Amino acid sequence: MSKTISIFDTTLRDGTQGEGISLSADDKLKIAKKLDDLGVHYIEGGIPGSNSKDIEFFKRVQQLGLKAKITAFGSTRRKESVADQDANLQRILQSGAHAATLVGKSWDFHVHTALQTTLEENLAMIYDSIAFLKRSGMEVIFDAEHFFDGYKHNPEYAVAVMRKAQEAGADWLVMCDTNGGSMPHEIYEIVTSLGQSVESARLGIHTHNDCELAVANALTAVQAGARQVQGTMNGYGERCGNANLCSVIPNLQLKLGYECIREEQMKQLTNSARYISEVANVNMPVNQPYVGNAAFAHKGGIHVSAIMRDSRTYEHIAPETVGNKQRVLVSELAGQSNVLSKAKDIGVHLDPSSEEARSVIDKIKELEHQGYQFEGADASLELLIREANGEMKELFTFESFKVLVEKSAGKAVVSEAFVKLNVAGSSVYTAAEGNGPVNALDNALRKALAQYFPALRDMHLSDYKVRVLDEKDATAAKVRVLIESKNYENTWNTVGVSGNVIEASWEALVDSFRHALLSENIEPPPSGSAVSSNGIVNH
Amino acid sequence: MSKTISIFDTTLRDGTQGEGISLSADDKLKIAKKLDDLGVHYIEGGIPGSNSKDIEFFKRVQQLGLKAKITAFGSTRRKESVADQDANLQRILQSGAHAATLVGKSWDFHVHTALQTTLEENLAMIYDSIAFLKRSGMEVIFDAEHFFDGYKHNPEYAVAVMRKAQEAGADWLVMCDTNGGSMPHEIYEIVTSLGQSVESARLGIHTHNDCELAVANALTAVQAGARQVQGTMNGYGERCGNANLCSVIPNLQLKLGYECIREEQMKQLTNSARYISEVANVNMPVNQPYVGNAAFAHKGGIHVSAIMRDSRTYEHIAPETVGNKQRVLVSELAGQSNVLSKAKDIGVHLDPSSEEARSVIDKIKELEHQGYQFEGADASLELLIREANGEMKELFTFESFKVLVEKSAGKAVVSEAFVKLNVAGSSVYTAAEGNGPVNALDNALRKALAQYFPALRDMHLSDYKVRVLDEKDATAAKVRVLIESKNYENTWNTVGVSGNVIEASWEALVDSFRHALLSENIEPPPSGSAVSSNGIVNH
Repeated sequence: MSKTISIFDTTLRDGTQGEGISLSADDKLKIAKKLDDLGVHYIEGGIPGSNSKDIEFFKRVQQLGLKAKITAFGSTRRKESVADQDANLQRILQSGAHAATLVGKSWDFHVHTALQTTLEENLAMIYDSIAFLKRSGMEVIFDAEHFFDGYKHNPEYAVAVMRKAQEAGADWLVMCDTNGGSMPHEIYEIVTSLGQSVESARLGIHTHNDCELAVANALTAVQAGARQVQGTMNGYGERCGNANLCSVIPNLQLKLGYECIREEQMKQLTNSARYISEVANVNMPVNQPYVGNAAFAHKGGIHVSAIMRDSRTYEHIAPETVGNKQRVLVSELAGQSNVLSKAKDIGVHLDPSSEEARSVIDKIKELEHQGYQFEGADASLELLIREANGEMKELFTFESFKVLVEKSAGKAVVSEAFVKLNVAGSSVYTAAEGNGPVNALDNALRKALAQYFPALRDMHLSDYKVRVLDEKDATAAKVRVLIESKNYENTWNTVGVSGNVIEASWEALVDSFRHALLSENIEPPPSGSAVSSNGIVNH
Repeated sequence: MSKTISIFDTTLRDGTQGEGISLSADDKLKIAKKLDDLGVHYIEGGIPGSNSKDIEFFKRVQQLGLKAKITAFGSTRRKESVADQDANLQRILQSGAHAATLVGKSWDFHVHTALQTTLEENLAMIYDSIAFLKRSGMEVIFDAEHFFDGYKHNPEYAVAVMRKAQEAGADWLVMCDTNGGSMPHEIYEIVTSLGQSVESARLGIHTHNDCELAVANALTAVQAGARQVQGTMNGYGERCGNANLCSVIPNLQLKLGYECIREEQMKQLTNSARYISEVANVNMPVNQPYVGNAAFAHKGGIHVSAIMRDSRTYEHIAPETVGNKQRVLVSELAGQSNVLSKAKDIGVHLDPSSEEARSVIDKIKELEHQGYQFEGADASLELLIREANGEMKELFTFESFKVLVEKSAGKAVVSEAFVKLNVAGSSVYTAAEGNGPVNALDNALRKALAQYFPALRDMHLSDYKVRVLDEKDATAAKVRVLIESKNYENTWNTVGVSGNVIEASWEALVDSFRHALLSENIEPPPSGSAVSSNGIVNH
């Protein structure tokens, strides 16, 4: 049996059923391009005619010249009607897509309860619809909805549905675990059994994650004979999501010896997952398998000293295989070796026995004692190391800030921030409003700096976390603020700690901007260009 | 073979290895209590003696009288030393825990590379350490680190390790997939094979999620004969996390017919998962299986009309079984019974069909939609119910507040608050400093009210939590503040939500003071007693 697996991506269709996922036509086109580069074989774009975004997508995607087969989704014809005149089937045909994914019922309970028709009519609906699209020259992928639930309740009927689809000429018979409730051993048995009933057919699998088993169920179906896997990037999808292709693909290829995408495409996996999460505007779980930021992060001191000897001790694959990288988290549980390895990462040579190394390690220990946490604040740590190594070139210095929050009965709360900096020798004083005090500070700081360093306009804060340390002290307790920032290429994290939530936020904000200036390596414009005669720039 | 599965929770130990997870001793005790109510059989509390938090935990947990067995984690003795004199083993013994989880090497590569000792010495380390703790009367759970990797490379040695542990008297032999790289079919084969080699032993399984297969691997190990599952709540843990008990438990019990916890405890699953994520201050993924907010949410129009006919059409289990609920885009009466039962609790008779009941339920639904959460804010809920029932007697009304935070280079940050209230017909204007803006507000509010209501001097805030909702909006996101307050007799909790952290804190503060005045049933002193001629009291 062939070891080649066809990867069918439905991020743009089933993925958009996930809570909080909403994609414009532009977003969909960007994602399709990325998926094509990654090497998936089918890209399901949406439901033609269901809304204007999908109509636009199918039109414009043809101009991209993608290698992947573009696929349009729809249901079998309506009951007691004629396929050739079915509006939805017509729209699939007119979409210009290479293939159609046609969904049909295979669970008798659903035929009765949801469709409210007879088992015979459902078979006819499936046959007619597939035959019509095949006659029209399309490739047809038949998605048997609720196949496993159907098989468990009425195996004869579920198999009859698949036989009918095969008879009508379907190119693929895909078994869907629509409700996500099946266990891996059931999937294995049922796929094996169907394989024996429809011998020459090519089988596919479509699973959902309601039992946290979508990936396992997809793998076991392949082991039982399925040769197409349907899923979404990052597992987006209705309820608990679909099978996560970012885990399915490396598991199949790196662990089980199947072929899905090329080796150099596999190295794009992490980057593709992160890009798509950015376009979808959804935070990626830090602990996401293979592609997450913590997937190869090591915290425990003993683990760290072992991976320094040989990374296979605590890593199941080389992170580079999927384009990810090893990270050593600096935390209370670890010490000197973590700091040295971080320095190495950022290209700073720190001699373990040097004064500089001693001083940065002591400083970090002291800061951790105060409540700082650098495991989630790589960028702040990098600044400390570069500082200790004497290579920080500060492009601005702090003079003062003021924050005012005001609220009167019956009126909206008002937040303002006033920031005074020295940038390139000039005093810059700005004010800004915000929908909260930290947002106001962020706005004022950006305003003060963006004129000198326009690249800062591309940067934004993407995550803001507040943690009250020692909660027993309530509002007099220390707080730790963690900020995540992003631009088109990078993500970085900074930290601030203070008894004052505003001051802690300010610290983390300033580190974020310092780090942005560092990695962008921006030189300030000639001073005086936007400075008034008294040396103060007003915005 | 028995169908009873022993659930071993390591949220407090392995879970804290997860990025961004940091628990105080208080947090750990709260979580232990919750886990005990949920019915897990073992609670691994930490590593005795590794840090002051864990020492405190093991000391204080004994006073809680939990049913679960408290477990202390540690490694086998150091190489070339004597178990009885090993400082770590001594600390395990002194911790007062019922059981010890002893981790030992079972992969020859690790013995050579990480331990840097001989295979024979490693066997002796395992034997001596287990025998020592058994002689001292502890239950011993032996965690064979990297068991599956070890077995794949050198099956004889991996089995020899387990035989040695059994010989030393270990109560459980637990197979760890430490690097999370094993596939389910490998797990099944290796567990089956070990079962044949150590026949009378009780086997356990400990899996990690690096391939998104931790849950599947735990299930398949049970199907192959393991009778203990180690995992964490919400799957917290190093890198990609541990096996998620919130999915393992319902899969084993509701899908595969094993017994883990009682039926009424299963109904606490969702609530427990959410409570623990709150204490850990980590956002729960909306799409988390079984317990996530979207786990039974229906977005697609066709799906919704089908589930209205019969919810089994698109739900793999009844959400109530795990204490979760269905969410659809049509109005629902979820919450009504909670509100009525709360009203009964506080002695308010609320007729379910009355205008008052309708109005308070609608209001709560609206507030929850805005991000309020009353599960952790009983006092705010009580105020809403009393208000709807027309029995709130407001002893003060709000006029305005102002907060100013100021910081100049080289100087300490200054926070001031100005609060204007109307108390008993008089306008009261106070100012106060604090070590942060919320502390300043708290001080100013107390100053304004305590002169009229002296009992407020006995009240203080005992917990303050800030939660950023919708973190991707970063500093422009909404925040939820939860405040816990105490006096000599009572503890009460209040909530505030706003795009502005100061306003959200103010709301929760005001509710706390309103509730204090309510339960103390204080009458204001004769007005005018401390009021100047213009009706304004200055402090």
